[in-house]
Amino acid sequence: MKTLTLNVKGMTCGHCKSAVNGALAELEGIDNVEVNLETGKVDVSFDETKVDETKMKEAIEEQGYDVA
Amino acid sequence: MKTLTLNVKGMTCGHCKSAVNGALAELEGIDNVEVNLETGKVDVSFDETKVDETKMKEAIEEQGYDVA
Repeated sequence: MKTLTLNVKGMTCGHCKSAVNGALAELEGIDNVEVNLETGKVDVSFDETKVDETKMKEAIEEQGYDVA
Repeated sequence: MKTLTLNVKGMTCGHCKSAVNGALAELEGIDNVEVNLETGKVDVSFDETKVDETKMKEAIEEQGYDVA
């Protein structure tokens, strides 16, 4: 299991938090997601044999947020 | 059919707009809802024999927003 922190821009409320959380949680290989609305930081633990940062970024961007 | 404008506080994003729109649209007697995210103004046209401002405020507050 590996961890990384994504910097997500544009999350403003609890719905945004849920949208990002849900989009990541749906990916295969994601173990845990922690979204911090105030800082925009999203901590993810994942199985690096099943998912990578590119896929996570795509999932978040599909929800309408930018990943720095 | 009657119209009124509610001033809703705390809507920050498209999800918030959808939440308020959806909560009002579910009420019986609501004809049309227009949510302006920037101003917080929500224009509603409704059948005053079926729904009133109190019910609308309650529906919005249940979603976690304040109505001024």
